[in-house]
Amino acid sequence: MGREPEGKKMKKLSMLYEGKAKKVYITMDPDLFVVEYKDDATAFNGEKKGQIAHKGILNNKISNIFFTLLAQQGVENHFVKALSENEQLVKKVSIFPVEVVVRNLAAGSMAKRLGLIEGLPLPKPVLELYYKDDSLGDPLINDDHVTMLNIATPEQLAEMKAITLRVNEILSSYLLDKNIILVDFKLEFGLTSSEKVILADEISPDTCRFWDAKTKEKLDKDRFRRDLGKVEEAYQTILKRLGGEIHV
Amino acid sequence: MGREPEGKKMKKLSMLYEGKAKKVYITMDPDLFVVEYKDDATAFNGEKKGQIAHKGILNNKISNIFFTLLAQQGVENHFVKALSENEQLVKKVSIFPVEVVVRNLAAGSMAKRLGLIEGLPLPKPVLELYYKDDSLGDPLINDDHVTMLNIATPEQLAEMKAITLRVNEILSSYLLDKNIILVDFKLEFGLTSSEKVILADEISPDTCRFWDAKTKEKLDKDRFRRDLGKVEEAYQTILKRLGGEIHV
Repeated sequence: MGREPEGKKMKKLSMLYEGKAKKVYITMDPDLFVVEYKDDATAFNGEKKGQIAHKGILNNKISNIFFTLLAQQGVENHFVKALSENEQLVKKVSIFPVEVVVRNLAAGSMAKRLGLIEGLPLPKPVLELYYKDDSLGDPLINDDHVTMLNIATPEQLAEMKAITLRVNEILSSYLLDKNIILVDFKLEFGLTSSEKVILADEISPDTCRFWDAKTKEKLDKDRFRRDLGKVEEAYQTILKRLGGEIHV
Repeated sequence: MGREPEGKKMKKLSMLYEGKAKKVYITMDPDLFVVEYKDDATAFNGEKKGQIAHKGILNNKISNIFFTLLAQQGVENHFVKALSENEQLVKKVSIFPVEVVVRNLAAGSMAKRLGLIEGLPLPKPVLELYYKDDSLGDPLINDDHVTMLNIATPEQLAEMKAITLRVNEILSSYLLDKNIILVDFKLEFGLTSSEKVILADEISPDTCRFWDAKTKEKLDKDRFRRDLGKVEEAYQTILKRLGGEIHV
């Protein structure tokens, strides 16, 4: 009944869940999970599959930098600490099955859906909600759908939206200093055991569109989606500009 | 410079616009349009085309009954008066390019999008917005898209939503008395010359899903969309239950 040594408590036990880009493991501590980032890459609702060399390590490090920065700025999130090159310890949360997307410039599915030119600056950030359901192709939904599907209460949804806009402010400004435009990104949220809505999942070139501020070169998963080449290099560039590094 | 006789002022002049189901004409009176309802029927963003016998007359009469009822209940709308079997005089408005849909039971595109069984009762009415743009296939949009695309101001959108919910209450209860379930419907709104948001377009079996309350038989355009037969009969049934009649 004595206190477990720290190291043992953080050891991965059985796998709870395997997603497209990450595996989640339970630990001896009922309030902590281990997330392992994978090199697997998918796009277009899993229709396109591949691997990006060292993506697991790169996204783990990039996410850690963003989550640490956000925590410093008062945005509570699930990140606890890095465990290894491609693993991080996180707080256990129950993920809401909704993706909250915020866009600063038109791109991706919104540009296509609304017939907008990619790169069109938006007068103010546009929020979108997508229902996390692979069999339905993660459809765009609205606030009423969220309530109707019992995805979240209106109060929880309002909280997610407010956090998303705050994250957008913090990261947009932080990244512009690094010569990167934050075009758009996707966040996911979880409910803690004390019923608090906190930021979870990852923030990486898999889940954000990053453009070089001068050349407008894409530095994110669009390079994989659109077969633009130099995919790993783009992820490396992001990590490097954030002050991180890997030697491979 | 004398006052024009009433009849002359309501005469159709040049056609302003031809839609899939209606033609709109300007009149001598700059504040009035004439709407002519057509027998043409389309579905699936114009991919399916056909005609429904006497639909123009039926929808004109059905719309008139609904618009008159709504005006009596305090919901201002564009309807002025019937002019002929298939023509009505309406106030001139500038139509907002957004369709406001309200759903009481899951059906149609929402059931498909969210993987719901058709006929599932919704705990509370679900509102949806669709961008009126044929070339884009009238995509589902959210409030932020409405603002970003300059479709309407947030205040105008809030007004449209409030009117839609009020119309849903009035019509649901009115129709249930006639043994009809109002499953869902689509409204369009216009801005008057004095910048007021009012209900416009039509309310008919083309724009609503009506089910017989006992048999759940479809009494609307789904009979055309899904080749269920007895299309004109369904529209006739609706008109008859509303107390109207045509002899053809």
